[in-house]
Amino acid sequence: MSSPETSTFRDPMYLELFGQFKKTLTQLDKWLEAAAAHAAAKGFDPAVYLTLRLAPDQFPFVRQVQIACDTAKLGASRLSGKDAPKHADDEQSLEALRARVTSTVAYLESFSAADFEGAATRRVTQPRWEGKYMLGADYFREHALPNFYFHTTHVYALLRHNGVNLGKKDFLGTLSMHQP
Amino acid sequence: MSSPETSTFRDPMYLELFGQFKKTLTQLDKWLEAAAAHAAAKGFDPAVYLTLRLAPDQFPFVRQVQIACDTAKLGASRLSGKDAPKHADDEQSLEALRARVTSTVAYLESFSAADFEGAATRRVTQPRWEGKYMLGADYFREHALPNFYFHTTHVYALLRHNGVNLGKKDFLGTLSMHQP
Repeated sequence: MSSPETSTFRDPMYLELFGQFKKTLTQLDKWLEAAAAHAAAKGFDPAVYLTLRLAPDQFPFVRQVQIACDTAKLGASRLSGKDAPKHADDEQSLEALRARVTSTVAYLESFSAADFEGAATRRVTQPRWEGKYMLGADYFREHALPNFYFHTTHVYALLRHNGVNLGKKDFLGTLSMHQP
Repeated sequence: MSSPETSTFRDPMYLELFGQFKKTLTQLDKWLEAAAAHAAAKGFDPAVYLTLRLAPDQFPFVRQVQIACDTAKLGASRLSGKDAPKHADDEQSLEALRARVTSTVAYLESFSAADFEGAATRRVTQPRWEGKYMLGADYFREHALPNFYFHTTHVYALLRHNGVNLGKKDFLGTLSMHQP
């Protein structure tokens, strides 16, 4: 909990926003833990979660977790120029997905505000854009931010839809509340 | 599409982030339009959408749309001190929900950067917090931002789960891409 006297808001606020991604991924890890406990209590194979989909032409659960991690990881890497750890996308268990989350959180923890100097005007691209680019500020706001919450929310929604006992507090985590 | 020479990134960037919320709500309106077309094509009553849930103890579709709108509306109001339009939460059709979205977008369009001066250190509270408060920067990052995408993504996910033909591009909208 931060002190009321020291707002964490600075310019650029990328560090805080990736800090928020880190917080959400830390919550996501708890959802995976709850999913494992639910499978154990009901006596089903927790690997079943990995193939769940809300629609047959949406990515399955395992891919939702992978993309949530990669949106945070590649977002921070592209905006800072810092190399990101490689992941093979070969997870076949909740434990392996939890390790993926842990690795992503550790990478996000390696950043300082200085890493994001100039990020707003950095040119960001990826192979599928065929040479086109976005400015860092636009990329973060229009692409990384909504994609990150799109995929983390799908992870959460898939678990809720399949009976895992989660609530909004598990999505948000602890809030920086102050007494008057 | 912004020019590469003029990044829209400023401090504080609340105006741009609420601009992103506005963009997502504009996309959400298109999802509702697609939902209506899907109902017409399949010959079912579009009011059915309003009661859909992904889990019996989650809010139904109608409430997900209302909260998505209110997270944007009340977030901007609380961070700026500008009065927000009142909504009765009595929508009973997709058309009424689309009007709610339109009204929220119009409110967000009324803001300028100056409205958010001092927002980061403003004390934000709401009745259910029983006197406790959050600083504006923390409130935006930890509460408004994840809640907004949580509820918009649930709206999208409920429609996808029920056969409406949407894809990621419909979620993100047009990206500010530039030719090299």
